[in-house]
Amino acid sequence: MPASYAYLGPEGTFTEVALRTLPEAATRELIPYVSVQSALDAVRAGEAEAAFVPIENSVEGGITTTLDELVAGTPLTIYREVLLSITFALLVRPGTRLSEIKTVTAHPAAQPQVRNWLKKHLPDVVWESAASNADGARLVQEGRYDAAFAGEFAAARYGLEALETGIHDAENAQTRFVLVGRPARPAAPTGADKTSIVVWQRDDHPGGLRDLLGEFATRGVNLMLLQSRPTGAGIGNYCFCIDAEGHISDRRVAETLMGLKRVCLQVRFLGSYPRADVGPAEVREPLPGTSDDEFVSAADWVARCQDGRF
Amino acid sequence: MPASYAYLGPEGTFTEVALRTLPEAATRELIPYVSVQSALDAVRAGEAEAAFVPIENSVEGGITTTLDELVAGTPLTIYREVLLSITFALLVRPGTRLSEIKTVTAHPAAQPQVRNWLKKHLPDVVWESAASNADGARLVQEGRYDAAFAGEFAAARYGLEALETGIHDAENAQTRFVLVGRPARPAAPTGADKTSIVVWQRDDHPGGLRDLLGEFATRGVNLMLLQSRPTGAGIGNYCFCIDAEGHISDRRVAETLMGLKRVCLQVRFLGSYPRADVGPAEVREPLPGTSDDEFVSAADWVARCQDGRF
Repeated sequence: MPASYAYLGPEGTFTEVALRTLPEAATRELIPYVSVQSALDAVRAGEAEAAFVPIENSVEGGITTTLDELVAGTPLTIYREVLLSITFALLVRPGTRLSEIKTVTAHPAAQPQVRNWLKKHLPDVVWESAASNADGARLVQEGRYDAAFAGEFAAARYGLEALETGIHDAENAQTRFVLVGRPARPAAPTGADKTSIVVWQRDDHPGGLRDLLGEFATRGVNLMLLQSRPTGAGIGNYCFCIDAEGHISDRRVAETLMGLKRVCLQVRFLGSYPRADVGPAEVREPLPGTSDDEFVSAADWVARCQDGRF
Repeated sequence: MPASYAYLGPEGTFTEVALRTLPEAATRELIPYVSVQSALDAVRAGEAEAAFVPIENSVEGGITTTLDELVAGTPLTIYREVLLSITFALLVRPGTRLSEIKTVTAHPAAQPQVRNWLKKHLPDVVWESAASNADGARLVQEGRYDAAFAGEFAAARYGLEALETGIHDAENAQTRFVLVGRPARPAAPTGADKTSIVVWQRDDHPGGLRDLLGEFATRGVNLMLLQSRPTGAGIGNYCFCIDAEGHISDRRVAETLMGLKRVCLQVRFLGSYPRADVGPAEVREPLPGTSDDEFVSAADWVARCQDGRF
């Protein structure tokens, strides 16, 4: 297997910075791809060991391109997640003053995060979207635009200077990235894990989604993300991308997945992997009656009853 | 009040075509705005009577810009919805042949709907995003790109011809638009209505969302859309945009909203309005025990009991 990771490029984006926080990235060749789809296709085709792509951010919510790729097509698995705080710098050619900026560019996803700053400091500026924040910086270098919003780290690479740093409309602006590979046995639980799945409901009736979520609640499994995605079969037809606390080897998570498999039209397992937001020491205790030990002794008790040994 | 409707422009987009299907649009001045935000701000500022914007499509799901505007800021109300089937035409300057097309443009939302078509017919073409599909057509007219994906109706306006029509990757590709105004008494129920709300949960615990959805299920109210949107307070913090079957004057819907008001941190009512997907004759019967008559006689019975007349 090639020792390379594909990632959403180009170089000098937040994605690359996030990827380099993973220790295993140091021993791999990191190859930028032009889109989430092409990075994931490289994994599916066996050209890369894994792909690193954004999946959720705290301003825009789930990154739909990535979710839709994981929902459909050849199954892939999430191995790792990374959280990165996002603040923007306003990059200009050296010497440019704020009052000289007439045009500004960045990836469309940056716009909601800098909108208020722009309204206050550059109300009359013309915004043009770029293919990525790094690409926007390149276009400023080439003189096509006056300024670009990008990570401060992109300034040096493109011979620009940061006229302003720390720009973000929302406090706690974060993006969540995942390392995605071909299906394999999940890594052992760490004590602070997350399990991602996609579910398709069997039919549409009052209480259908409530019953589905009851599979989690009954076993004391907390939800961390519930994002509806259209199935493509017309308005109102959705499947659900769900992140739940815990690891598929936890009894309460395994039994929840079995319950969903029984009652849903289809369930796709996307992986169990370590949580990036907390360590094992910060994970809350399972609800009373939902620990592994309690699942095991309850199973033993039923077996004894079935055996006439109650 | 000014007799004008703001809409997401420019002229010649699917939004304008959808707006013109509303009978009331014929008696209003229709004014294009450059963004969803500016169209809604025109309503908030009293410059327009209402604004017409896309809110959901069957390929991309909820239109997050619109949802986020309805979730935050000064409250607005949905009065009407329109469903429009979306297929694209490939527009070129007259005489251009398919083999001559090197660059193509459209609004980014068009991309997932034409991706497979492009891969098959123009695999090497360069894609550049435009501010809108109509703006893309204008840029082709000016010679900046070779072709644009837009509605076939845009060809005449920009002096272009449709080299190909009926392009859509997903069958049943539809977009849902809403007419949004300042808060007012909802129109009377038609028998086939929809109610839109936003809910913020009080806290995060296993079963929290299941319990919230139980408010609907207990009263036999079906969900038509559940879309999570980040609250801006960091990864994992979401509110929910919910569309439910029925009208706020239906007893089962009113009692559901009261239940949510009691148990949620916050509930925002976005309106009750006629469904565009079905007429009254096609609406399913309420579940046994959830009709208005049954709610009324149950309330009477409790009142009699409280009164000692059981």
